[in-house]
Amino acid sequence: MTDRESHINQMKEYTPEYYWLALKLIPRLSIQKKLVLVKRYGIEQLFNQPPSQQQLAISEKQYQGIVNPDWFAIEKIIAHSQQAGAVIVSYQDANYPQLLKQIYDPPLVLFVKGDTRLLNRQQIAIVGSRNASIHGREAATLLAKELTECGLVVTSGLALGIDAFAHKGAVDNQQATIAVIATGIDIVYPARNKGLAKQIIEYGGAIISEFLPHTPPKAGHFPKRNRIISGLSQGVLVIEAAMKSGSLITARCALEQNRDVYAMPGNIQNPQVKGCHWLIKQGAKLVDEVADIIEEVNVNSDYGLHLKGNNNRNKEKGQGSKKSCDQDLFNDSLLASVGYEITPVDTVVSRSKLPTDVVLTRLTMLELRGLVSAVPGGYLKIK
Amino acid sequence: MTDRESHINQMKEYTPEYYWLALKLIPRLSIQKKLVLVKRYGIEQLFNQPPSQQQLAISEKQYQGIVNPDWFAIEKIIAHSQQAGAVIVSYQDANYPQLLKQIYDPPLVLFVKGDTRLLNRQQIAIVGSRNASIHGREAATLLAKELTECGLVVTSGLALGIDAFAHKGAVDNQQATIAVIATGIDIVYPARNKGLAKQIIEYGGAIISEFLPHTPPKAGHFPKRNRIISGLSQGVLVIEAAMKSGSLITARCALEQNRDVYAMPGNIQNPQVKGCHWLIKQGAKLVDEVADIIEEVNVNSDYGLHLKGNNNRNKEKGQGSKKSCDQDLFNDSLLASVGYEITPVDTVVSRSKLPTDVVLTRLTMLELRGLVSAVPGGYLKIK
Repeated sequence: MTDRESHINQMKEYTPEYYWLALKLIPRLSIQKKLVLVKRYGIEQLFNQPPSQQQLAISEKQYQGIVNPDWFAIEKIIAHSQQAGAVIVSYQDANYPQLLKQIYDPPLVLFVKGDTRLLNRQQIAIVGSRNASIHGREAATLLAKELTECGLVVTSGLALGIDAFAHKGAVDNQQATIAVIATGIDIVYPARNKGLAKQIIEYGGAIISEFLPHTPPKAGHFPKRNRIISGLSQGVLVIEAAMKSGSLITARCALEQNRDVYAMPGNIQNPQVKGCHWLIKQGAKLVDEVADIIEEVNVNSDYGLHLKGNNNRNKEKGQGSKKSCDQDLFNDSLLASVGYEITPVDTVVSRSKLPTDVVLTRLTMLELRGLVSAVPGGYLKIK
Repeated sequence: MTDRESHINQMKEYTPEYYWLALKLIPRLSIQKKLVLVKRYGIEQLFNQPPSQQQLAISEKQYQGIVNPDWFAIEKIIAHSQQAGAVIVSYQDANYPQLLKQIYDPPLVLFVKGDTRLLNRQQIAIVGSRNASIHGREAATLLAKELTECGLVVTSGLALGIDAFAHKGAVDNQQATIAVIATGIDIVYPARNKGLAKQIIEYGGAIISEFLPHTPPKAGHFPKRNRIISGLSQGVLVIEAAMKSGSLITARCALEQNRDVYAMPGNIQNPQVKGCHWLIKQGAKLVDEVADIIEEVNVNSDYGLHLKGNNNRNKEKGQGSKKSCDQDLFNDSLLASVGYEITPVDTVVSRSKLPTDVVLTRLTMLELRGLVSAVPGGYLKIK
């Protein structure tokens, strides 16, 4: 009995990822069509009791992928994945990211290194130019750090430039971050980011790919990868992107996937922010501080459960930026100081225990948001 | 007969500015109420055949300002204005700016040095921080220059920082610019801008003030002045403004006056752009190139009539930026290349005589603006 024959005989013992990989390997059939088949027949049923080729309405070659899957190749994929220290999270796995299921063409399997529970944490993607300016890099690091301090996971693409500095902002702060890569899970591209990739895993993050192990970097794979970055995230923050850049593709994916698009502005003389300004003109939200994102995202409070490591390194550094992620709460506490009857500013000041000038600025902002109204004698809540 | 008595006897020979100045001098009566009186009785009638105090419903002191105006003081104001090289443009003067009449409290008289015809030219105000960064200054100069090249007059406040560089962008290009000042027309404040003030007049611009000659700089006058800057203009561009800055007051005036508000973004680390970012978040249009303004403004084509000077100095410098003000036309010419039937991209390229990549980018922008639609086989106009 050959290796292949022995596999065929053992067919019914396969774990779900075997079937999902078999499904993935069916040639030239779209992800949507594959998912329709799974919905109609069930994943194991499809391979164990396959309907006729006519019923499935697929080509002979595609049908062969169902009635005679290359279990040997699949076994090898699983082995290579294991050797790389990755697990396979298939579409029906409990850890498969729910948000990703909402996109048009969700990956059938994900190869995941690191903490798979992370995939269902609330994520904000940070993407941007490989040739980012020093300002862009600093902003990526700072905003990523502050987002993680607010309980969000920062997701990016492990590229040079903004991507790397976004991941860095998280790992420097010993927080989890997700890198979605466009190569096989066993390859780090660019090689310069090997140390960073190691740190990502070390601090409880994850590296994920939909591509088979050994897949080298290919131009066509990067846009595909981008749809996963935005698909995993509640919103995408673009920091420095030239016109016609990959980051704008990610932003477009985000829009198509009904995700929020955020863009950081910059000096108009910097061609690397042209794309960000363009996005803002098209309606993306301008972000110049992390509070701009936090006020759009309903942050789950139970995130702490999944946090790994908790030692004191860098703890001091974190203090300063803690303020910005408390901003929403802070606004709320101010809002709570304004009543539905006329509340004099003095009363708001004494209730909120904030300086008068801060209170006045915040009241104006709340007024502009339509939450309070300025009336003779003070302010009143209108919502 | 005293000087005063001789003036009273000559009452009927006064030119309109005498009456408007007399009206201006009536103490503690709002501009709106004064304009109501003029509307009801006519300006000359009001002073020559004044109704009773009861009819006018004003105080005794105010009534004295009507029945017994201080013609001597008025004569002196006119003399000082003339000595400063200024003319008086009163509310009913043909050169009084029509746009300014639309605001809540238009000045009753304007003291004007330079070309009074300029007041009714299309204006864009540029305002911003006194402590602008080098980027902000460069941007103010460049954008002002490009706006004037597009036939618009740049209006600002002759302050240090952004104001000065906006005026400079115009005068360096030998174009007209309007400075609205918060002192008497005979004073240049800050003194450092004396050379600039001279150049503004030299290149066909104007300096205007609603304050009486000899009025020194006073804190309370600057916000009043700001309402004139925005009131004269179709839109206000804010370049670098901290939170709670005078520029934000001008932006608020502009909103109240139903003018467009534009804001230039910058590096998020620069506290001087915080106010600009805040404005954009509130709905101001992000401006990173002059085309962003031009596409909102219906530029009159007859502006050339009023242009002074036309020699070749700086002509070369002007070449580069000419492009940006042609952008609207350029977009239009592209739009004109797309038909209401499906137009292949090749056809758009050959009609527009533009490179393919430019055409594709512009088509995407037109599509996002809802002007064309991408369909199989090409694009079609939908508006």
